[in-house]
Parts: sequence; C-alpha cells; structure tokens
Amino acid sequence: MANKISTKPPSGMRDFLAGEVARRRFVVAKITEAYETFGFVPIETPTIENLSTLLGKYGEEGDQLLYRILHRRDALTRAVEGAASEGRPATALELSDLGLRYDLTVPLARVVAQYGDLPKFFKRYQVQPVWRADRPGRGRFREFYQCDVDVTGTTSLVADAEVCGAVAAALDALGFDDYEIRLNHRALLRAMVRAAGIGDEHETTALVAVDKLDKIGRDGVVSELSGRGVDSDSAERLLALAVADPSCSNEQRLDALAGGGLDEEGRSACDSLRELLKMADPTPAGRRLRVSPELARGLSYYTGPIFEVAVPDLHGSLGGGGRYDGLVGMFGKRSVPAVGFSLGLERILVVMEERGMYPEISAGPEVMLCWLDVEPSQALEVATQLRTHGVRVEVYPESTKLKKQLAYAASDGVGAAFAIILGRDEWERQQPTLRDLTTGAQRSDNIERLVGLIRQGGFST
Amino acid sequence: MANKISTKPPSGMRDFLAGEVARRRFVVAKITEAYETFGFVPIETPTIENLSTLLGKYGEEGDQLLYRILHRRDALTRAVEGAASEGRPATALELSDLGLRYDLTVPLARVVAQYGDLPKFFKRYQVQPVWRADRPGRGRFREFYQCDVDVTGTTSLVADAEVCGAVAAALDALGFDDYEIRLNHRALLRAMVRAAGIGDEHETTALVAVDKLDKIGRDGVVSELSGRGVDSDSAERLLALAVADPSCSNEQRLDALAGGGLDEEGRSACDSLRELLKMADPTPAGRRLRVSPELARGLSYYTGPIFEVAVPDLHGSLGGGGRYDGLVGMFGKRSVPAVGFSLGLERILVVMEERGMYPEISAGPEVMLCWLDVEPSQALEVATQLRTHGVRVEVYPESTKLKKQLAYAASDGVGAAFAIILGRDEWERQQPTLRDLTTGAQRSDNIERLVGLIRQGGFST
Repeated sequence: MANKISTKPPSGMRDFLAGEVARRRFVVAKITEAYETFGFVPIETPTIENLSTLLGKYGEEGDQLLYRILHRRDALTRAVEGAASEGRPATALELSDLGLRYDLTVPLARVVAQYGDLPKFFKRYQVQPVWRADRPGRGRFREFYQCDVDVTGTTSLVADAEVCGAVAAALDALGFDDYEIRLNHRALLRAMVRAAGIGDEHETTALVAVDKLDKIGRDGVVSELSGRGVDSDSAERLLALAVADPSCSNEQRLDALAGGGLDEEGRSACDSLRELLKMADPTPAGRRLRVSPELARGLSYYTGPIFEVAVPDLHGSLGGGGRYDGLVGMFGKRSVPAVGFSLGLERILVVMEERGMYPEISAGPEVMLCWLDVEPSQALEVATQLRTHGVRVEVYPESTKLKKQLAYAASDGVGAAFAIILGRDEWERQQPTLRDLTTGAQRSDNIERLVGLIRQGGFST
Repeated sequence: MANKISTKPPSGMRDFLAGEVARRRFVVAKITEAYETFGFVPIETPTIENLSTLLGKYGEEGDQLLYRILHRRDALTRAVEGAASEGRPATALELSDLGLRYDLTVPLARVVAQYGDLPKFFKRYQVQPVWRADRPGRGRFREFYQCDVDVTGTTSLVADAEVCGAVAAALDALGFDDYEIRLNHRALLRAMVRAAGIGDEHETTALVAVDKLDKIGRDGVVSELSGRGVDSDSAERLLALAVADPSCSNEQRLDALAGGGLDEEGRSACDSLRELLKMADPTPAGRRLRVSPELARGLSYYTGPIFEVAVPDLHGSLGGGGRYDGLVGMFGKRSVPAVGFSLGLERILVVMEERGMYPEISAGPEVMLCWLDVEPSQALEVATQLRTHGVRVEVYPESTKLKKQLAYAASDGVGAAFAIILGRDEWERQQPTLRDLTTGAQRSDNIERLVGLIRQGGFST
C-alpha cells in the first residue's frame, strides 16, 4: 500500500451520502416544481466558462474569488517560459483563460446574447452548483448550489413581480412561514446618497457601508463612512433615510422616503416600487415584501429593484436578486433588460435542518434478499422478479448464516424494512418468506402477494 | 457597449436549452429508477478534488487530461516567484494542487476509504459530470455525465452480476433492444499474453493493441505489435486466442480459451466468467452478456472481470466497467474490493436521438395568460389561482394587443397549449376565457372548471 493520502474532500467542498442526497433532492424538487408553475423552463450551462465571460462582472472582489483553470501542455509551456525569458514570474492571466462558473446570472446573460431564437420573454430557471474561493465557514462553502429564476426581454415590472412570486411559492412549498422579502431600488439608493449630500465619488462606499447596518450598527456605519472621507452630518442624513421605522407599512416607508428630499429620479424609483408592490400583492410574494431602504446587495450589475430573503434565525439571506438591464449588453451584441431571483440551496438546507422541517425520506432498498442452501443465481432470479414489480431489492452478496444476513439487513446504514428469505424449501415451492424487520412477523407466499404486502407496508402476524 | 466578447461556451462544453434538459432528465430518471430497484443508493462528490487523489490512477495519458485549478493569491505568488528566483519556469505541479473530477470511480474509492460507517457492502450510484481535456469530437465532450453503479466490500461475483443487471435494466427501460455487454477478465487477458509467448514487459503494449482490433484490424494489430518488439508469431498466437468465432456460444468461447494453452491463472479466470454468466443469467443482463476475449478496457485499475456495452450503430461504447480490488487500498488505509459499471449519458443520448427513441416530453408553460383592459395585478391574481391548482402558467408581461399576445403564446419557443384571456368582462364575471391554441376553440368559465378542461387536454366546441 502507498503512503496515506488525505481522503477528505478539499477545503470548503463536501461529499453527500445517501440521506443528504435525498434531502437535497427533496428541496430541489419542491423549488423546481414551484418555478415551473410560474412558466419558467430549465436550462443548464457548462461548469467551465471563458474567463472573458466571467471577469469584470462581479467587481474586483469577485474576480479574486474565481477558480481559474491552469493552461495545459504547450499553452502552459509558452506562458511560463515566455515570462521566464523576460526574467519575471508569469501572471494569473497568462496562466489561464478558463474559470469555473461563479454564479448563474452571467452564464444566462451569455446564453441570451448567444442564441437568437430564444423566446422574446425568456423565463428560465437553473439549479446548478457555482464555485467561489471564499473563506469557508458555517453554511458557507466553496461549491454550492443556486436555484435561479430570471425573465429577460422586458422592463415590465410584471417580470419583477413574477420572480418574487416564484421564489415565495418555492419557500411556501418547503414550509417556510416567517420569511420576509426585503425590497429596495438601486435608483432610490443613489438618490438617497445624493439627498444626504454625499458626492458621486463616495456613492459605492456609502452603499457598501449602509448594507452592513445590521452587522455593524449605526455607529459602525458612521465611523466607516468618516474613515473614508464622508462627513458625519452627511452620514447621519443618509442613515435617517435608510433606517425605516419598524412599525411603518410599506406605503408609509415609501411616503417617508419620497418626502425626505429625494430628487426626481428617487421619487420615480419610489413610484416603481409602489407599482411593483401592487402587482405582487395577489401573488405568494404579496404579504412577504417589505420595503427596506438599507438594502444595497453586493453585486455591481443591478440597475433597478433589488430583493433579498431573510428569516429571523439566519444571519445572511436565503437568497436575493434584482433587475440588471445592462448585463446582457456587456457582451456587446444587443441590450436586453432582465430581472432575476436566486435561492441559495445550502442556506435553505441549514435552516430546514435546524428547524426539523424535513419529512421522512426513504432512499435505500426496501427489501434485503437473504438466501441459504440455494444457488446465488436462484437468489438473483427471485430478486429479478421483485424488481420487475418496482420493488427496491438488495441481494446479500455472500453465502453466510441467515442470522448474519438478517442483522445486516436491519442495520442502520442499510435500513431495509423487509427481508425476503429464500431457502431450499421456499425455492422449491416458489414461495419465499417475507419478514418484517421491525416486528419480526413472517409469511411465505408467491411473489405477487408478497409484493402486495410490501406495498401496503407490512402485515400483522 | 463593450467590444464583442465570444458568447459561445468554451470548446468541448455545451449549453443545454429547455428541450435538451428535458430529454437529459428523462434519460437520467429512467437510469436512476433502474439503479434504485437494484438497491443502489445515491451519493454526490465535489467537482474539485485534491490532485493527490486524482494523479496516478488513470495512467499517464489520464494525468495529462486532468483540468487543474490554478493557485490563487499568495500560493500563486510563491509558486511563480520561487521558480523565477531559480531562473526557471514554474511547473504544473507547483502551480496547482486541485483538479476537476475525471471519473466517478476514484472519488468513490476516496469516499469508501474516508467514511468508516458506510454499510459493509456499499452499493452506491452516482450521476454527475466529469471533465477531461480531450480533443472534442462527435459525441465526445470535455464535460460529460457518467451514470455509475458500484458495489464495494465483497469479492463475491454476485456483485459483478448485480452491476451488469442494473445497467441492463436501465438500458431496457430506455428501450434499447440490440445491445451487447462484452465480458472479459483481466487475469484471462494476462494469461493469453503469456500463452502467446509474449514477455511481461510487453503485456500492456499487447493488451492496448488487441483492444484496438475493431478499429485497426488484424493486420494493424500485428504491425503495431511488431513495431513495439513483439515478434509476429507471438502476435498471431495472441490474435488466435483473442478473436472469437462469431458463431460460438459463450460456453464454447470459454472452452476454446481454456483449451488454448492457458495456465492455471487463466483457466481459473475462465471459471470465474462461467460462474458470473450463470449468476447473471436470470437478471436483465443474462441474454446480453457476450464473452469477448479481445476486450481490454483502457483504465489501469481493473483487476478482474471487465465489461463494455456495445450497440451496432455506435463506434465506441455506451459504457463500461469492471472489478478493481486494488483502488481503495491505494489511499493507504485499508484494502476494499470493488466492482462497478458506468453508463455514458452523452453516448446514450446520441443514439436515442438518431434512432428517434424519445417520447414527447413537454417542459414549458401549459397556459399563457393574456390580458387587456385590466390591471396587471388582476392578471397576476388569476395566474395565482391557476398555479394553486398546479397549472404551469406564464403571464404575458407587457400591455399590448390581444392578437400579439396570442401569437406569442402559440409561437415555437413558447409552445403553450392554451391561452387564458382576461378582459374587463371576464374579470368582472370572474370567468376567464380558455382558448385552445391548436383548434381555436374557446370557453368562458370559472377557474375550477377551466382547470378541469386543461387537465383533460382541451374541449370540443
């Protein structure tokens, strides 16, 4: 044997064994069913994208977190030797021109730019993993799944209302009853910054600081802003706009903002949010939406309404999204407006696990076929008959004592509900014995009737 | 707008739009259902593995085809500057210690070595993509899906019979009726080489050449072997053993081999294949298995029986597998025997497409909600009611002429079977109009009755 090699997955990556896969599939199925009732259709894009597709879409920090693929063979030789011949180290950009998908939005934008024959209003959903070389932490992984819905091709707020509705329908179907969809607007945020007397050059700084309000508090925001050259009067004015009175309704919050010295663009953004709230009202998102003037969202490509899903017992969000009317145009072909919403599968799973929200999900074999004094081919013949009826059957693979086979069948990792016992008598009569591994009850009968007993979940002695 | 960026996926990678996703899901569902009736349970492993896990398992050529992840930040700086300070280019091994999954077998072996509490006989299935930086070609991609079943923890041939049975059940469920599962044994191959008088040092060369028999023919094999130092008499003796008479049964083929001067190890391998054929006989693999003495399989980790699925109209195979009793032990903890079989999703899809084997699969919205002279929120309210009944509904997002909305609903990319028309009258009566987009038939009624009509697939005028 070789020396020990680490058999753990790499840092921030995970193996999913059967029970976990079953829970993940359960959640994904609920989400995709909900998305499909909203008329979204699935697409899938490749794991590996050209770096030219990915770079410059997520801000500088995002670019840093990209996993890049090392050139191979000649391309690698050229890169390292070219740099060495100039007496300098090769750069990351010389060593790589491919990277792993960082989110599902940029690949969608590429797809919309690429395929001219998509429906004008392209409603797609996509559930796939993405990769970010972030510091791993509780509920934060380097490979994780996003569950996205997006509508491209229209600036109509119906599309914004629909992505919110679809996400709310998915969360409802999973049994969440206490989430809130926070709602803001990029143009409103910019107008708030202007109304506070903060110059354009500090806009991004100001929004990043406000977005941290629930992490670092009011004083933290003011001190972060003053550290970056925003005077404390302006910072206080911005906070006065951004911090909503918890007792106020959405309508009151928007009235307060619009009356707070916003310019024309800011008031128009308030009107958009009013319109969106009205449209979303009859959808599952209606009672969940909450105007949240402090919400900024990190990604730089948003241009209009922005959303984020919050539950009380999770720091961070279950998902987020917004309108991004400029992203498809960045591929240089044509400008296409778009809006989307993304749920984070891992965050949902963490909360559901902690709250005990999963139903009983069975994944393994229903029946262990135990055999003695017969040929293995005879055991396989009976297994084949059971499987033809759709029963999930494992055949004990080795010839050994029945007691040992039965103990294995009932063990934790296997968890079969039944054993079928095939001895020489059973084989000759073609009547195997079905044993309920919980009660110990047994009955010999023909295959059809045993399948019936398995399907009804057992029998009384 | 920026300059044009290529919006194609990288070479060898693909985007899957809705119809393709639906077909892929259909096939994967059939395969996993079949695997589950054989008692296999799902696992998933991360896309990214440590290079120490991957390297040295697939032979030199496999190592060349690995996608490697470039170090980031400090690790990258250290690697390139360290090499530069020594006046030499950095090597691939210095620039990377992570790579993308190359198959599903090595990750399984790692998982079995890692988790001590797995069932003793671990029957797992896994359907995930793998990546190989191979030259792309027809039906050959750089990102492609494998659908694997494996049994670890036993040397019993019951396990070999079961993986063959599961794969055959999957292909049967998909409607394949003309495939063959070619069967050989690594120990038999080695004994054939010895019986032909070829030295150990030429064993790999000889097996690689024989494996190409159907590509390059008898003469090609002889000339390849003589080019590598195997005399033509030995080459002819090897071919005499490896080329089976097409009219011979499996039993006759094994008799011919065992009588062809094989040593003890070779005859024992023939006995194993006889036993395996007998066990597999009652399973779906029974009538498919074909002893094929020329089958060698590329991967270096096989130790016992090997399998490959062939159909007449595909060059190359639909899948393959075999026993690999040494792989788990390579991780240095404990030795665990194993056998597995892998179906290639893309190959299956290509053949099914060419043969027209897909059923009609509908993925998009069933109903387009078209609205005029009502508020968008009223359209969304009716859509919500329909969705509560599980109907897949798209809402036309913009306010425009009804004719245009109906034309869009029936267009190719959307393909809704029905429109629901909501005008002011319909809203006030709470009786929308259902329109069959194929026949043009219409009826106004309450939501429940319209849902009934949609569920029964339409109505006569």
